[in-house]
Amino acid sequence: MTEAPYLTFELDIPGVSTGHLVVPRGADCEALSLPVFSCNRGEGPSLLITGGNHGNELEGPIVARRLIEWLPEAQTCGRVIIVPVLNPPAVEAWTRNTPIDGLNLNRTFPGRADGSVTERIADAVSRLLLPMADTIFDLHSFGPTWDFPPAVITHTIADADLMAKTLQIAEAFKLPMTLLWDYHDTIGMFDTLAHSQSKVFICAEFGSGTVGAEALAIYEAGARNALIALGLVEGEAEYPTFRQKKSSQTLETRSSDELKSPARGIFEPRCSVLDEVKQGDLIGVLHPMDSLSAVSINICTPTTSIVCAIKSGLHVEADEGVAMLARPLTSEVRLRIYRPEINWKGDHRPLASNGEYLRR
Amino acid sequence: MTEAPYLTFELDIPGVSTGHLVVPRGADCEALSLPVFSCNRGEGPSLLITGGNHGNELEGPIVARRLIEWLPEAQTCGRVIIVPVLNPPAVEAWTRNTPIDGLNLNRTFPGRADGSVTERIADAVSRLLLPMADTIFDLHSFGPTWDFPPAVITHTIADADLMAKTLQIAEAFKLPMTLLWDYHDTIGMFDTLAHSQSKVFICAEFGSGTVGAEALAIYEAGARNALIALGLVEGEAEYPTFRQKKSSQTLETRSSDELKSPARGIFEPRCSVLDEVKQGDLIGVLHPMDSLSAVSINICTPTTSIVCAIKSGLHVEADEGVAMLARPLTSEVRLRIYRPEINWKGDHRPLASNGEYLRR
Repeated sequence: MTEAPYLTFELDIPGVSTGHLVVPRGADCEALSLPVFSCNRGEGPSLLITGGNHGNELEGPIVARRLIEWLPEAQTCGRVIIVPVLNPPAVEAWTRNTPIDGLNLNRTFPGRADGSVTERIADAVSRLLLPMADTIFDLHSFGPTWDFPPAVITHTIADADLMAKTLQIAEAFKLPMTLLWDYHDTIGMFDTLAHSQSKVFICAEFGSGTVGAEALAIYEAGARNALIALGLVEGEAEYPTFRQKKSSQTLETRSSDELKSPARGIFEPRCSVLDEVKQGDLIGVLHPMDSLSAVSINICTPTTSIVCAIKSGLHVEADEGVAMLARPLTSEVRLRIYRPEINWKGDHRPLASNGEYLRR
Repeated sequence: MTEAPYLTFELDIPGVSTGHLVVPRGADCEALSLPVFSCNRGEGPSLLITGGNHGNELEGPIVARRLIEWLPEAQTCGRVIIVPVLNPPAVEAWTRNTPIDGLNLNRTFPGRADGSVTERIADAVSRLLLPMADTIFDLHSFGPTWDFPPAVITHTIADADLMAKTLQIAEAFKLPMTLLWDYHDTIGMFDTLAHSQSKVFICAEFGSGTVGAEALAIYEAGARNALIALGLVEGEAEYPTFRQKKSSQTLETRSSDELKSPARGIFEPRCSVLDEVKQGDLIGVLHPMDSLSAVSINICTPTTSIVCAIKSGLHVEADEGVAMLARPLTSEVRLRIYRPEINWKGDHRPLASNGEYLRR
């Protein structure tokens, strides 16, 4: 008989409490106990924050731990539930997917109670935690093989109201980049499940590469800004400094904006994230590995763009993605998305193209 | 019968030539062909540059490829041989060790002709390339799980003359850090074999984390500086800019300067490389993963130091290294090492404590 997942504590009690979400054992492994934090300050928004969905993206679990230390003093209303590590076996192995069954947790939602371990984790989260929240922050990063700026990504959402709400909260992080990504491989994503229940789902993509002290401070500032925007915490939001700049831009990208390697070999990046590039500018060089008489191949940008992601220098296969380009979100697209009547926190001022409220 | 490794071209012909070092097949895999570049400009120093000794350190192969493009025009005398990728199976797999036999190439020298693939690579390099050079630059990095500044590392060498020569060439890279590392796990290292033949061996440790365009420019500048110092290329050396600074410092560290994690959990770095820290300063925090009621543990520095390496935020086991501390190389140690009579390039001026020749 299939066992049911359960929480070791009562989420509805007021104040701060901690316990575990128990994912039942199965044929492939013993039961898992995922630590869960709850801070319940009564009426207000309800937020679920999750990290460690992918095991090689450790920015999320660390920022989640920092928020757990800060929230008990800072939170003034509403409810925040935090699960720093959704996928403990993947985090321990420093792998994107779960090493036990090879599955990508973020393609497994809503999961199955009688499935393999990744499916059981998805099932437990879907059934016991997701219903408690109207907003979800899932803390990801681009992982160790990419350079990527601290960002919030949102995919195009069919429901216009939800799209507008989501973009507004995404921009409230005030991270260097907010990216509207027209992305189609969404089956089984945590996002997709949350959207189907009309919840605001924010995918924070907290940079990439080495997880260092300076980057973590930026990510924590972004998360605090968003908690202030939601009204859970009082305070003044501010732009964190990234590579000597204090600013934020909202960009859009499509699958067709990905540049791919023309051959197998070693990819050498020749530009950095947030660089503005003109048509024909050099993005990187592909060095064939098999012979030094084979010519290295320049990879250039097809159109004027902003580099939003670039692969770390490493061995790549032919047709593997090496860079992602983006363009500023046009006011046309923004106007189509933005609906003043659902302005978050009841602020009905129109948004300027930089994502700030217009002063009036 | 064991096959012998061979070169597909004649290294002694003047000018630029390319070909392969063929590592014979064995029971575990087919023959490997390692691309080799040679630029022979007659009399002068002979230098061997190797990259991709460890497969998840791609800075080396990329800088090697850049030097191959630059040297034919720039080199004025002597001989330079370059092997961008010593361990192709490890580079393709993005793993430190060879995936086929699990061996660390840099603990396998001088190798064995009838051994497994890693031993056969070491044997081929030891027999056919090492004898051609009096100086070796082996281009490493600290890999993707550490933050580490662009540096040259040298271990303590018993032969005082060789130690002095090595330190002098190491400092000629003018990278942000030159590190004298009192290190004991040296059996089977490429360094150890070269030292036993009285060759100058430079282990460049070209940073860590994401392999990006800005970092690669620093590493290339360092390698060019060293080629100028050796007299193979004419030009003016200059300090590359790293995190807004143009400077270099020579530090020393010991195995006992490594800080270890007090427990298993997620390590959160709280400082950055080259930070100066006082006794008791916070280096990082260890967050236990199993329960949120378990207290996070502060990891502090025991003495006034400079942080020379700090682990990326990720899951660590108890007693796993999370940071390395260092101290400026004292003038006492430097005086013990430095011998004016073997000053490289015949320049007999004494060195100042910053590694520069004293003006007089």
